[in-house]
Order: sequence, then C-alpha cells, then structure tokens
Amino acid sequence: MASDKRIELVPGGPSLSRLVFGAWRLLDGGAKPDAEAVARLIDMSVDLGITSFDHADIYGGYEVEEAFGAGLARWKGRRDSIELISKCGIMLKSPQRPANRLKHYDTGAAHISASVDRSLKNLGTDYLDLLLIHRPDPLMDADETAAGLERVVKAGKVRAVGVSNFTVAQFDLLASRLPFPVVTNQVEHSVLETSALTDGRFDHAQRQRYAPMIWSPLGGGSLFTGDGQREHNVRAALSLVAAETGAHDVATVAIAWLLRHPARLVPVLGTMKPERLAQLVRALEVTLDRQQWFSILEASEGRAVP
Amino acid sequence: MASDKRIELVPGGPSLSRLVFGAWRLLDGGAKPDAEAVARLIDMSVDLGITSFDHADIYGGYEVEEAFGAGLARWKGRRDSIELISKCGIMLKSPQRPANRLKHYDTGAAHISASVDRSLKNLGTDYLDLLLIHRPDPLMDADETAAGLERVVKAGKVRAVGVSNFTVAQFDLLASRLPFPVVTNQVEHSVLETSALTDGRFDHAQRQRYAPMIWSPLGGGSLFTGDGQREHNVRAALSLVAAETGAHDVATVAIAWLLRHPARLVPVLGTMKPERLAQLVRALEVTLDRQQWFSILEASEGRAVP
Amino acid sequence: MASDKRIELVPGGPSLSRLVFGAWRLLDGGAKPDAEAVARLIDMSVDLGITSFDHADIYGGYEVEEAFGAGLARWKGRRDSIELISKCGIMLKSPQRPANRLKHYDTGAAHISASVDRSLKNLGTDYLDLLLIHRPDPLMDADETAAGLERVVKAGKVRAVGVSNFTVAQFDLLASRLPFPVVTNQVEHSVLETSALTDGRFDHAQRQRYAPMIWSPLGGGSLFTGDGQREHNVRAALSLVAAETGAHDVATVAIAWLLRHPARLVPVLGTMKPERLAQLVRALEVTLDRQQWFSILEASEGRAVP
Repeated sequence: MASDKRIELVPGGPSLSRLVFGAWRLLDGGAKPDAEAVARLIDMSVDLGITSFDHADIYGGYEVEEAFGAGLARWKGRRDSIELISKCGIMLKSPQRPANRLKHYDTGAAHISASVDRSLKNLGTDYLDLLLIHRPDPLMDADETAAGLERVVKAGKVRAVGVSNFTVAQFDLLASRLPFPVVTNQVEHSVLETSALTDGRFDHAQRQRYAPMIWSPLGGGSLFTGDGQREHNVRAALSLVAAETGAHDVATVAIAWLLRHPARLVPVLGTMKPERLAQLVRALEVTLDRQQWFSILEASEGRAVP
Repeated sequence: MASDKRIELVPGGPSLSRLVFGAWRLLDGGAKPDAEAVARLIDMSVDLGITSFDHADIYGGYEVEEAFGAGLARWKGRRDSIELISKCGIMLKSPQRPANRLKHYDTGAAHISASVDRSLKNLGTDYLDLLLIHRPDPLMDADETAAGLERVVKAGKVRAVGVSNFTVAQFDLLASRLPFPVVTNQVEHSVLETSALTDGRFDHAQRQRYAPMIWSPLGGGSLFTGDGQREHNVRAALSLVAAETGAHDVATVAIAWLLRHPARLVPVLGTMKPERLAQLVRALEVTLDRQQWFSILEASEGRAVP
Repeated sequence: MASDKRIELVPGGPSLSRLVFGAWRLLDGGAKPDAEAVARLIDMSVDLGITSFDHADIYGGYEVEEAFGAGLARWKGRRDSIELISKCGIMLKSPQRPANRLKHYDTGAAHISASVDRSLKNLGTDYLDLLLIHRPDPLMDADETAAGLERVVKAGKVRAVGVSNFTVAQFDLLASRLPFPVVTNQVEHSVLETSALTDGRFDHAQRQRYAPMIWSPLGGGSLFTGDGQREHNVRAALSLVAAETGAHDVATVAIAWLLRHPARLVPVLGTMKPERLAQLVRALEVTLDRQQWFSILEASEGRAVP
C-alpha cells in the first residue's frame, strides 16, 4: 500500500515515512490531550503509515515534547518502528525560560547539547533520529556548531543532522564543517508560498540529493480561509484537479502537488484530527500530471508560466 | 574580415558565428515568406558571415521550423557550412497542440526525444548543432532530463546541449548530471535589460568559460519606439557613441555594447530585413572603449556607477 | 592588552590590526592637516594598536595618499611595523583626471599596474601590504585582471590581494583565476546596513575562512544624526548595552557589535579625531552576549527574529 512508502533523506541515509506528523500544534486545541489521547494519536498515525514525528524544543511554549513523551510512554509500539525528529536553536521569550529577555538564537555547542538532553528527557527516549538547527543564526560559528552536532551524534543521542529555514549559502557553510551529510533542510512551501521553487533551494536539494522537509504545506490554513482573489483561484484550481483525479478534497490535492516535485519533498502535516490525517494520506495515491500541476501553479502566480 | 569571426561556446567545443540569426519572427510579417524567399534570406545571412540559425519548436506557433526547412531545402549551400540550433520544453496552448490545456513545461526524456525528432523533420536535417532546454521547468527531474539529453546526443541527433533562461542554480543542477558540458545559457540581455550583469549569470559564464547567447539584444524594439525618459536617454547615449565610433547607427552600437562584454556574449538577431541585418553586422567592426560602454550603462541605469 | 590583537585575513596569510584606520576623510576637515599633523595621527593610531591604514587611489579626489605619504615620511616608526592598504579600479571624473569624461571602472592590467605605481609613489613606500579591487567592474575580464594582480605581486609591489563590494559570484570568478587567495572582501556593514548578514557574503567568508573588512561601520554618521524611528530605536538599544557592558558609548558598542560576528569582521574606522579613535578602540574590550547582540539587531530590523 502506498502509505507504506518511505523516503531516504539522502542516498544510504536515514529514512522517514513519506509524510511526517507535525507535533507543532499538539497542545493548541481547547482541551489539551492527556497521555492516553496522545498514545491513540500516535497509534492512529502509525496505522496510516506515518511513523515520523516532527518536534522542536520550543513547540507549545516548550511543552509539546513532554506531553508527547507521556503519550509515547503509554504507546504499545516499539521505539525503533518510529522516528523522532526535534530541533534546537531558537530561544523564546517564555515563562519557561525566564533568562530569555528577547527572542534570539543560540547555535553554540553548549546549547545544542543541553537542548538535546532536554528533548530526550521530555520525549522519554535515548536518541533522536534527526536533529535540525531550527533557524539560521547570524551568529552561527560553523566550527562550533559543527563540533556541537558531532558531539551529540558521537554520543549516540542523535542519529542524523539537518537544518531548517536555511539559505543555500548557510547550508553549504555548515555542511563544509561536518564529517557527515546535512540530510535535510526543512523549509516553508505550499501552493501559496512557492519561492523555494525558484530561489535555488530546491535546485540545491536535488543537486545534492537530500530531501527537503516542508512545513506549512497547506499554507497555514489561509488556503481554506483566505478571502483574497489568489486563495480563491488556487482553491478553484485545486478543486478541479480534485474532481479530475478522484481525490475529492482540496487539501489532499495540495499535498499531492508537493509530492509531485522531483526534489522529493517531505510534507509535515500539522493536523491533530485523525479524520483529516487519514484524508491527507490519500495524497500518496494521487499523481498529478504535468498540466494539473501547472494549472495550480498558474492559479497561485496569477499568470501562465513565461 | 571581422564578420568571418566565429566563437567557441566552450573551449574546444562547438563554435557558432559571432552573431546568430534568430528565426523567431520568420512568419511574423504580413506576407509569409515562401521557400524561395527563405532560401534567399539564408543565403544573405551566410554571406554576411552569420551561419548560425536559432530556432525553437514553438516559434511561430510551431510553424517556423517547417517554413525554414522548406527554404533550407532550396538553398544551395552545404549543411555543414551552417549551424542549426533549436529548443524544446515549452508546451504552448495552440491549435497545433490540442492536448495542451494551458501553457506549461515538459523537460521529460520522452518529450525531448519527440521534440527533437519533430525539429529534425521540420528543418529537413539529420542533426541539430545545438539543442537548448527553453525555460527552467520547476518539475525538471535532472536525472531524467540529463538522460533524455544524453540519448539524443548519443543517437547523433544533437551535437551539443545548452539551456535558456536558467538561473545559475538551475544550470549547475542540470550540469551536475551530464557527462558533457552545458555549452551556453541563452538569456535576455540588452542596454534596457541589464540584470544578468550583476545577478551572477555572466559571472558564472565567465568563470565556467561558456559563452551566453543573448535574446532580445535590442530590447525587443522598445529601444527605438519607447517613449519613456530611460529609452530617450539610452538612445541619446547610443547616438553619441555612434557618432564617435563612426557606427552611424544606434542599433549597431547597442549590439557592439554587448560584444564588448568579457563573458563573450553571442547576440541573436531577430530582424528579417536584409538591410537591417547587414547594418547590425557592422557591430563586429565597432569597438567601444570603456567610457563609451559605461556612458550607455549610466544612461540605462539613470545614474553613474557607485 | 586587547588593542594589541591582530587578525590573520586568511589562515597563514597576511595579518592586520584588529581595527583599521580609514584614511578616506583625511582631507575632509576645514583645515587640511600638514605633514606634521599626519605624522602625529599615525603615531597616535599605532599607539592605540591600530597599525593598518586603509587607502584608495581616489580618496580625497586622488589627494589623500600623497598627504598621508608626507606624514609618513616624517613619522619616526618603521615601515614594517605598519600595514598600508590601497585600492584601484574606480575612475573618477576629477580635475586630476581630465581624461575621465564620466565615472567608470577599469580593472585592466595596465590600469592596475599604473595605479599601484602611483599609490607607491604617493605613499612614499615600495610595497603595499594589501591591494583591493575597489568595485565590481561589469567589464572585468577575470583572466586579465588576475594577470594584472599577479604581475604587481610578483614584482614585490603588492603583498596580498583582495576585493571590495563584490558579490559572492564576482569573488569566486576572480578567485578562480588567481594562484593565491583573495584575502578579503571589504563591504559596507553596520547596525543600520545588515544585508551582508543574510545575502550570503558573510556565509561565504566564514566558509572560505577569509576575514571581511567593513567600511562605514558606524553607518556613515546617520546612526548619530538620523532622525528616523529606526535610528532612534537603534541608538536606544545601543545605549542600553553601553550601560550594561560599561562601554559608556554608543559608537563603541556599535563596533563591538561588529566584532562579535563569527566571520571575523575587520572594521575600518573613519574618524580623524584622536579622542574618538581612542574611544572606539575600547570596543576590543567589550564583548556582547547573544541577547545584547540580538537586541541591537531587533532594533535595527524593527522586529524580533522569526
């Protein structure tokens, strides 16, 4: 079944499920899920073939990892049947971090090490399958950041390393200092935010053969609620393709649109609703032809390609 | 005589005449030229030293290649005394292509192969000297596109391969998959469209030692007809240099301005008027000094260099 | 003492003092300094640990180098205890250069050679420690420029070569033709002009391990005199950090903000006032922590980091 599909981030490197569960909004609903509810969510996700779970230290004001960990502790599956991803580097202004006087970044070795230790403790695991530097830090000393990343890898706490929101130049800088590959760049991309298509980021990924992870793959909701002409046109184009392909769902087509790209994009799905997740997984069975793909791009850009 | 000059696109690679005949507008006039008229145009062009002819499958709504081929069949010269260039990858919405529901791109191996076969048939030749991917395709799978290009080269149907309108990142991606060099990037450039001077494209070309081909080298006519302050100022600057150099013609100086660039730009001339072509060829005998070149840039940018 | 600190521009390459004296405005005051006054300025600068002096052929309308050279001739110190930097490539419209009809660039070998000879004569020295190409020249023939630079290096007239205001692509082009490293890119950067942080220039410098020199490190004065909301906010952020660190001076903190960057930025200080220079040198003893550094960035950008 297509939802079994996995994807190697780099040739011979770590693999994730073709779609990733994004835990970003785990605690965003009115009623926060208890451990049992989280365990059920994990179970449902794995049943759908989504075995990779995307976290960051800061999600939910530094509280998501711990809540997810409580659910994981109750979950009956094996640790090695899933992949846990986390991130570090952003320092939030938060009651949880009274020392932070303003939002800033820290990509120093000490912070990487401390943040990984906290993520492991909160998630209740002894390794992360993948650790990402969350944002490009203008103060990143690449030698030091690389040394920090090497240390957590050598200690067995982290199995692979990537980045998020990096430009090509920032990616190349960090990669130049590491003895192992940077296996992904997690970037924002959707039918409503297409700059990575042309600014070199996906060209670089395809050239270097790493698979970008995609955050906000549905445009952060504005795809469905946006009132502008552009959102309207994109919804219309998606609807038409939904009808043509039998996908019957605009969001499913928006994900299938991402899966069609040759750079091998790995969408991170942020919904906490089991029925939505089940619907989105159907994107794996929908293959857009070129004209369908370009009809959506044309709607997004408001003009035909040149 | 200067108009004999040829240019190697890459060291040891294929060579073109220093100026190229652009067949884009072959059928744009009121009365379409018959085969005899096209044969005369080819003859006149070759007499002027312009032996390279730039085509694309889509020119004239997919009709230019065939009309040119009819002329070529009547022309008395030898096939190996001229160079035929074509392009593929754009899928026009056209009565000729009823399957195309919207303008889009296809850089897949099957389309490359089919398009080359059609170009060969239409032109009445058994090889293209140069095939270009016409536009960067956001769905380009570089492995597949490269395999498609290799196939037509190995079959002897295409002698060299290039691209058009590619960014540096797109060029590097495709080049990374090919066992032979990408010999040119055909880009828009003129005294009115100078972005390639500073956005890295000409730096890359010079560094890698390939000669960019230039489309719309006269700014698509707005240089002569444009009513804005900028067009006015650029015409004035060109006129002054025309007088100083004895070129006696604004358009000739606009071409000489391109020829002065160290990246070795190869202008594609779009005029179908023999007397215009003869005039433009005189650009090969006009050498601008640095101050003349910069006076035209200054007029175009509306300010002195920083 | 910290002001003794020196910095290698590239590993094993030439070193400068950690801060550089910029001679740009040497003749800008009402009363032009005589040779004795210049000698005192040199002495004072060296006493402060600033042994590197940044020039260009064109500074002061082609007159600064000669005025500085007169002072240098009276100065009692040894030539090899200081570093002289100059630049070439800009052709000013100036009474001193009647042949220049408009401002333009010349990066040809003949101009490099002639300009270096004039700089040596004007400064009264037989070598430059560092020569920079002053601006990226759209007509730069990299082979020829590199040959010109090699010639002055081989002749012993220039000990190391760099560039100024180059993009990464322009830097890489020239570097690809040289048998020795390009040791710096002197760029504009300050708390009010931060584009080099994110456009790849500092990433490239850090990756290649060359130290960028920084011109206009205080924003050309608008930091102090600017009336806009942005200047106001940046001054307020600098003031707060000045109080926290004991720096007691907004400009000193603005320099310390530059020194904190991991790409190893080398500010060129343009003040001719000994007491200002002494104050700015104190930046070497001020180390901003991450939150202080980001508070200034936040004030400059008008928003927290994403």
